[in-house]
Amino acid sequence: MSPNQPGEQPKDPIPGVRHLIAVGSGKGGVGKTTVSVNLAVALARLGHKTGLLDADVYGPNVPLMMGRRDMPEVRHERIQPIEQFGVQLMSMGFLNPGDKPLIWRGPMLHSAMQQFIRGVDWGELEYLIIDLPPGTGDVALSLIQTVPLTGAIVVTTPSDVSLEDARKAVHMFRQVRVEILGIVENMSYLVCPHCDKRVDVFSYGGGRRTADEMGVNFLAELPLNPLVRAGGDSGRPVALGNNKDIHTADFLHLAEATIARIAEVGSPKGPTIEVEE
Amino acid sequence: MSPNQPGEQPKDPIPGVRHLIAVGSGKGGVGKTTVSVNLAVALARLGHKTGLLDADVYGPNVPLMMGRRDMPEVRHERIQPIEQFGVQLMSMGFLNPGDKPLIWRGPMLHSAMQQFIRGVDWGELEYLIIDLPPGTGDVALSLIQTVPLTGAIVVTTPSDVSLEDARKAVHMFRQVRVEILGIVENMSYLVCPHCDKRVDVFSYGGGRRTADEMGVNFLAELPLNPLVRAGGDSGRPVALGNNKDIHTADFLHLAEATIARIAEVGSPKGPTIEVEE
Repeated sequence: MSPNQPGEQPKDPIPGVRHLIAVGSGKGGVGKTTVSVNLAVALARLGHKTGLLDADVYGPNVPLMMGRRDMPEVRHERIQPIEQFGVQLMSMGFLNPGDKPLIWRGPMLHSAMQQFIRGVDWGELEYLIIDLPPGTGDVALSLIQTVPLTGAIVVTTPSDVSLEDARKAVHMFRQVRVEILGIVENMSYLVCPHCDKRVDVFSYGGGRRTADEMGVNFLAELPLNPLVRAGGDSGRPVALGNNKDIHTADFLHLAEATIARIAEVGSPKGPTIEVEE
Repeated sequence: MSPNQPGEQPKDPIPGVRHLIAVGSGKGGVGKTTVSVNLAVALARLGHKTGLLDADVYGPNVPLMMGRRDMPEVRHERIQPIEQFGVQLMSMGFLNPGDKPLIWRGPMLHSAMQQFIRGVDWGELEYLIIDLPPGTGDVALSLIQTVPLTGAIVVTTPSDVSLEDARKAVHMFRQVRVEILGIVENMSYLVCPHCDKRVDVFSYGGGRRTADEMGVNFLAELPLNPLVRAGGDSGRPVALGNNKDIHTADFLHLAEATIARIAEVGSPKGPTIEVEE
């Protein structure tokens, strides 16, 4: 399926960026940014040049989770991304630090987002992860309609309430003809740190079931782990940890599953010619 | 502080509705709708005429959590709310059921919201709870600027990431001169159903600390309880349960604390005259 259907605006590629991957969710608070941050760090650890754009303008949590608060420099009229843990970062949180909310309306946001994506000196990137705002609102929609996405990941918890909204997000991506790389079930279950028994805090398994029902891939189930949350709060994502630790390995597996899906889906820039020997 | 400052649009009262209470959050997924639904049910259980407007147009979860999916009737050109558990309900989820996302832009949403608030035959209500969309975006802002709110409740989890966004929400309400009734810390901690030990899944105590720092009231801490989530998923909020159960009692206490704060804050329609004997 071509991303440029008749009547659609052409989607200019972002020079130097090979694959744009959107991470979205129907509902907020399901761990979309946690997944984005750890996926980006894991891709970098696997040796890929990776960027992360925090497009959640109202609640940009990437600076906190990646432990950086710097004001980006502008060189040759281009915003320089901030590198942390091998990932090129950009976030509205760098430009609007502190507690004041950004009370911006639709059109202003739209141009800010375009500036963010196209005005940043990303350099050569294999993967640029875009952490979308939650939901199926204005900003998310404008964004996915104006950049050539390779595909999208939908994050949900296993609760029915979250799944209800995740299905909406899958429909939104389909409506604008973005490939779904897969669904990630986050906060799948908790292993009690005292008794090691499992607690299905938000129910369990609904992510895989929903993926099957909707005919999309299921990428990963990630347990609810206080260490993952603490990694986010302390600015040191767990994907940086020892790859023998299960919560670190989970994100490395997610990165590998994502790369495999991208290989299946291909580039959004058109068909490639393969020469067989 | 008067809600109508010079230069602001006048905010027409909603006929028959005494107190409008917004429930907001900086971040999604912190349990804003769970708190709204259970607060509304608890207020009704305490004998108050209560309504609940689900203003989260992109992810309207109130129908699922309250177990109703009916299409509202229109009588005398006014939308009739749906009564469930003694609460008058209205939600975009009633008008747009199923999985299709509502891909609406700002201005369309603004008029839909006005229609929702002012075109509904609410009847006589002591409390109308408005479950805002998460964040500090367009819809939330338009809404709180056009109705005379008695005050707002800000829901957060104790994680730093959620608190960062909760502070933004408090600033947003202050910027548009809405009284903060208080902060609710949701998912405060989990009591393991196997070993009864406590797990601070999302950290603990940040809600109260943030309330103190910002000079706002702290209304309640509500544990992360799989029964509360299951109540939402099954359409039977836990606030309907036995008031000796701690998770039911928690919401009844929240309702009482909210009523007490409303008595302190007073009506947004102007000062009341108290006659002392």
